[in-house]
Amino acid sequence: MRKYNGSSKLLLQPRRTEEVSRVLKYCNSRSLAVVPQGGNTGLVGGSVPVFDEVIINMASMKNVVSFDKVSGILVCEAGCILENLISFLDNQGFVMPLDLGAKGSCQIGGNVSTNAGGLRLVRYGSLHGNVLGIEVVLANGDVLDMLGTLRKDNTGYDLKHLFIGSEGSLGIITKVSILTPPKLSSVNLAFLACKDYSSCQKLLLEAKRRLGEVLSAFEFLDNQSLDLVLNHLEGVRNPLPPSMHNFYALIETTGSDESYDKEKLEAFLLRSMEGGLISDGVLAQDINQASSFWRIREGVAEALMKAGAVYKYDLSLPVEKMYNLVEEMRIRLGDSSKVIGYGHLGDGNLHLNISTPQYDDMILAQIEPFVYEWTSKHRGSISAEHGLGLMKANKIFYSKSRESVQLMASIKKLMDPNGILNPYKVLPHSLSYS
Amino acid sequence: MRKYNGSSKLLLQPRRTEEVSRVLKYCNSRSLAVVPQGGNTGLVGGSVPVFDEVIINMASMKNVVSFDKVSGILVCEAGCILENLISFLDNQGFVMPLDLGAKGSCQIGGNVSTNAGGLRLVRYGSLHGNVLGIEVVLANGDVLDMLGTLRKDNTGYDLKHLFIGSEGSLGIITKVSILTPPKLSSVNLAFLACKDYSSCQKLLLEAKRRLGEVLSAFEFLDNQSLDLVLNHLEGVRNPLPPSMHNFYALIETTGSDESYDKEKLEAFLLRSMEGGLISDGVLAQDINQASSFWRIREGVAEALMKAGAVYKYDLSLPVEKMYNLVEEMRIRLGDSSKVIGYGHLGDGNLHLNISTPQYDDMILAQIEPFVYEWTSKHRGSISAEHGLGLMKANKIFYSKSRESVQLMASIKKLMDPNGILNPYKVLPHSLSYS
Repeated sequence: MRKYNGSSKLLLQPRRTEEVSRVLKYCNSRSLAVVPQGGNTGLVGGSVPVFDEVIINMASMKNVVSFDKVSGILVCEAGCILENLISFLDNQGFVMPLDLGAKGSCQIGGNVSTNAGGLRLVRYGSLHGNVLGIEVVLANGDVLDMLGTLRKDNTGYDLKHLFIGSEGSLGIITKVSILTPPKLSSVNLAFLACKDYSSCQKLLLEAKRRLGEVLSAFEFLDNQSLDLVLNHLEGVRNPLPPSMHNFYALIETTGSDESYDKEKLEAFLLRSMEGGLISDGVLAQDINQASSFWRIREGVAEALMKAGAVYKYDLSLPVEKMYNLVEEMRIRLGDSSKVIGYGHLGDGNLHLNISTPQYDDMILAQIEPFVYEWTSKHRGSISAEHGLGLMKANKIFYSKSRESVQLMASIKKLMDPNGILNPYKVLPHSLSYS
Repeated sequence: MRKYNGSSKLLLQPRRTEEVSRVLKYCNSRSLAVVPQGGNTGLVGGSVPVFDEVIINMASMKNVVSFDKVSGILVCEAGCILENLISFLDNQGFVMPLDLGAKGSCQIGGNVSTNAGGLRLVRYGSLHGNVLGIEVVLANGDVLDMLGTLRKDNTGYDLKHLFIGSEGSLGIITKVSILTPPKLSSVNLAFLACKDYSSCQKLLLEAKRRLGEVLSAFEFLDNQSLDLVLNHLEGVRNPLPPSMHNFYALIETTGSDESYDKEKLEAFLLRSMEGGLISDGVLAQDINQASSFWRIREGVAEALMKAGAVYKYDLSLPVEKMYNLVEEMRIRLGDSSKVIGYGHLGDGNLHLNISTPQYDDMILAQIEPFVYEWTSKHRGSISAEHGLGLMKANKIFYSKSRESVQLMASIKKLMDPNGILNPYKVLPHSLSYS
């Protein structure tokens, strides 16, 4: 987005945990601020230096430490690139429970630090469920070995969760242990059209019930998103005959039986067509067609960048109210902007994006704080999977109570008394620096 | 087990969160210790008063607050009995992601406070993944509203995880929001015999790969466990023709297609039989037979109580080493005791039990600290799903590093400076009361 410009003069690339520890010990003793950096693919400015923080870049810690083929437990260093881990596991007959558009550059340490969500959460759940252990270096340089490889462990407080999603503000994750499911051979993907949002919702409910154990993704986009992709990305075609559909859904199933799974999805589509839940649809016939379907969904962000300026919001909302916000925003902004909605419908996660020819403070003022107030009113989250970073640190109260944020700040102060770890991020300034 | 005798003079049964808050506020201001109590089914003395703590019993807070049929999100009060929630959801076409032997009396608040594991963890994962939100009353009476109903929320630290598994020592959970999966119609169960432990392990690996998306439980017991059940429980029969098998496995599948799922399990059994992984096996023909199979696995604990004194250990270990401990223990104890091993093989969770005619300190001295040292040496957990409670508070270092426990103690001190919440539990005395 080029929204944030760092101004650090020093970038360090530690190769081992001990080096991270020595750097933090030194910085802590002199109250020098640091910013940990993974693949730098975040969207909320969580990994940019704000003033002159020392950058600790994890790219050199990129080894797989161990992989247990019986349990499917992978232990690796924080700087491993997600796509490399996906390939490594694929060779072993396993899959990462996490997959997202930025996989080519994002790092697993950054994924865990930001509690990344992505495309497969509907099937495998969040990183709080899949990460079995971490090794983390605290602000004072102490190395906390919580690198367990056990599925169950109820001995004391499960401290690793504090670090999952804390965006590097409580410690720097150096190693990760993660439970990976066996790779199932049969993957099927359907690209479907729905006439209205209510049909999308009903389709989700039916998919959960009838595809139950094989459902592995349920994504949606509106026709404005599709138009943007068709207009701005090369080589992308609409898989459905041109006709006015308002919504599109991608349903992916992953199972262990090719012919049965395909049959099951086909039966589901037929039923949904007859019941009027979908108005058209096509099943990917091969892996190339499947990746061309995914290209549409994953290409929305890229198309937005090419279209001009973009105001991005990543919201969790109760599924039944989710699209109302897009419609209200359209009325509010009128012809000045394109308002598009897409995202992980299966998880109640809306990516609301507003596209304009160039940035305009007047438009921003019409969007914010309205979008946050609306989300808060419906008990949603103003950051479903992107985190708060620099961008939304001061907006945390829209989603969390004063008491909760106060406790977060107390824990931050306890664990990082000199405030050296990723300052100006996650927590509001009023609490961090009082 | 009747191992712990409380000596409290006061039991309070609050009906609303505000009452819990007022009680804690009062107790905190006068430094009166409290012990929160759910269904009192724990096995490590986590809910017993040690001296004269005030008991806060949650049994009166037993209402379902809301249930969303689109998302499957249940919000309820902490005192709801697990079995009642299971029935409630069943009527709505959903299931609890949690099931365990004590379901008839344990409460959801206690389940969450102890991070209960149980029979379905292999399918649905731990409560850290399924609990979406909690409402908790802190030591000073502050009510922390973290009762989110969102699948994704990355706004600040996810504090609820601190309370999941903290055994009431950081706050009292008053409400829970939990994600429940749709009920799938087809449940199949097989009772199988394996000649050695290595076959059990290979069977698990094959089951994960070939039954992948439908596998919902993988339990095991050794022939000593089965003998105990057959000898001490009435009306229980061995489903397999009498013959010397060393190990038994229960494999349950849950899917959405009756005939296909059964076929799939049958094909799997045939293949496993041909490959020599199982030496015999039977598929439950109806729900009665299925519950008689479950009765064997779930009856082990009851049979042990009837057999005499029992020394119970709940361990997580790498699956390949798990049963070595049982064998080593047999050699160590000789004829003085029956050593039995059973548990949740799919999760690497061994219930090691030693049965003797009566309690004997000499035998205990042969078991402990050996069992903890062995577990620690193999980087296991000395408490996989039961927690630490009173029984193992001082043994935490076998599974957690000094630095981690120190941080736990700092967090406890920050959140409960007067130490009123469930004292003598979870954390070692040396740290709690220094």
